[in-house]
Amino acid sequence: MTALQREDIQAAADRFASDARGFIRTTPLWKLPGAALGISCAEVWLKLEHLQVAGSFKARGMYNRLLSNPIPASGVIVASGGNAGIATAAAARALGAPCEVFVPTVSSSAKQEKLRELGAQVVVTGAVYAEALEACLARQQQTGALLTHAYDQAEVVAGAGTIAMEIEAQGGEPPDSVLVSVGGGGLVAGIAAWFEDRSAVIALEPELAPTLHRARELGQPVDVTVSGIAADSLGARRVGAIAWDVAQRHVRDALLLSDPAIRAAQLTLWREFKLAVEPAAALGLAALQRGAYVPKGDEIVALVLCGANLDPATLA
Amino acid sequence: MTALQREDIQAAADRFASDARGFIRTTPLWKLPGAALGISCAEVWLKLEHLQVAGSFKARGMYNRLLSNPIPASGVIVASGGNAGIATAAAARALGAPCEVFVPTVSSSAKQEKLRELGAQVVVTGAVYAEALEACLARQQQTGALLTHAYDQAEVVAGAGTIAMEIEAQGGEPPDSVLVSVGGGGLVAGIAAWFEDRSAVIALEPELAPTLHRARELGQPVDVTVSGIAADSLGARRVGAIAWDVAQRHVRDALLLSDPAIRAAQLTLWREFKLAVEPAAALGLAALQRGAYVPKGDEIVALVLCGANLDPATLA
Repeated sequence: MTALQREDIQAAADRFASDARGFIRTTPLWKLPGAALGISCAEVWLKLEHLQVAGSFKARGMYNRLLSNPIPASGVIVASGGNAGIATAAAARALGAPCEVFVPTVSSSAKQEKLRELGAQVVVTGAVYAEALEACLARQQQTGALLTHAYDQAEVVAGAGTIAMEIEAQGGEPPDSVLVSVGGGGLVAGIAAWFEDRSAVIALEPELAPTLHRARELGQPVDVTVSGIAADSLGARRVGAIAWDVAQRHVRDALLLSDPAIRAAQLTLWREFKLAVEPAAALGLAALQRGAYVPKGDEIVALVLCGANLDPATLA
Repeated sequence: MTALQREDIQAAADRFASDARGFIRTTPLWKLPGAALGISCAEVWLKLEHLQVAGSFKARGMYNRLLSNPIPASGVIVASGGNAGIATAAAARALGAPCEVFVPTVSSSAKQEKLRELGAQVVVTGAVYAEALEACLARQQQTGALLTHAYDQAEVVAGAGTIAMEIEAQGGEPPDSVLVSVGGGGLVAGIAAWFEDRSAVIALEPELAPTLHRARELGQPVDVTVSGIAADSLGARRVGAIAWDVAQRHVRDALLLSDPAIRAAQLTLWREFKLAVEPAAALGLAALQRGAYVPKGDEIVALVLCGANLDPATLA
């Protein structure tokens, strides 16, 4: 495996910029004084990436994967009932390619319906994700469709890295620190690969889904048990190989947050800031609110709000 | 009445900028290609003013009113069960001033609770808004508290005008056109007073709350019957005197939208863009979607998303 390079991220950004469809959105960077969020630091930058097409940052990686490879007549294939599946289906539709999405029987009918709305062929199979993935890989062998992975493909990580490029361009400089939620690690890897050591990249995980935290403890990626409020988005069982490689060099720390802290931050973002985000997008504010991460007084801290695929009724 | 001047808006912006509390937020301007919204124009700029403190643009006007006048020991007083009341209560709390809010008995207990959360003394009186207002004015005569009006005070309109200043600064130029929702007209007046004829300012109203449209037909402000999906925010019975004065000079057109068009645009903003806004904030997109306003191919159109005080369950 070749390590992910900043050039790969630049190439992804160039693909998006020259794409006549304009599929990937440049999302706003909202600069606020720390005091506006009750945090003792100079500025908090909120990257509103939950406004990305298909409702999460995943669209960047999936679209970069599809733009970087020939798409066979059999189209695109993915195993995911969550944001990666939605983003793959939306990206395939934008390019006019057929898309098969494998989801386990436990996935909600609302999500299956959303995938069908996006034109995907939804295959419901297997009791758990691992079984859906197995069926997906077998099918891919038959059809030769282009496979997308939720986080552990170079093009997917490079696509996510374009968020960091945008933050730097919109902010006028790299922030002092960036707080990033981690599931399989594609987002944090892309961001850390861009900033390298120009920003302190801090990985955040739910206590109930500690893939990177455990890998750091043990010196290598291992399977962990995942559950909790953000498992829907951050419930990868093991940090990806690409993410592990980048994280060892450029991720400063990996912190854990409790589900109640994550939920409280999600509600603050809605009630005080009218940002409707899913729990996975609230870990950054949770870390600041609970003092898991304590910035310096003159620090600029960036938070990446990574997704908004939620039932809005859960905010009421 | 002296006509509202651009200098008044500049003065309001200076007050906000030099306010150590940093109460008023600079809200993001999101530039999108027209195609991203399915509109045949060069760019659509979404001013995300629904992210303003207290959930609507009203905070700008109310805070400017409070910063511009001595606040007596009896504090601040307002009659409003809606965004103006919430914004006044939040502004008074930021300045440590007591606040009385008069609301009619029909106002929801959720809104009364929100006002109490903000530290306001809530007085529930009168069957309809006009009766609550009457009681509020009688009380103000007794106490001498500083009265805020939802839209027809110069400081309130000037505060709203700072949104246009921000759009111009963030966009790098005035947009070709700005689509603005109208209730009592404070927002459109502030925006039109800033842009004058440098942008085409288009007023938008629900068919069921046509205060400016009727005033233009009849040549003067008149009472209208108001109802419908956005009456909560845009349900003023008559356009304000300041707004009428500015609108005659600087508002290009006043268009009407049906409730179903407004609702459809509100749902597009949530489902496709993850922007949770109240119906009043969706009139701009409704006008573009329904062809009530048809931009030129090379046009830059700005939409002001003015509020997000809604029950999120209504988006599900």
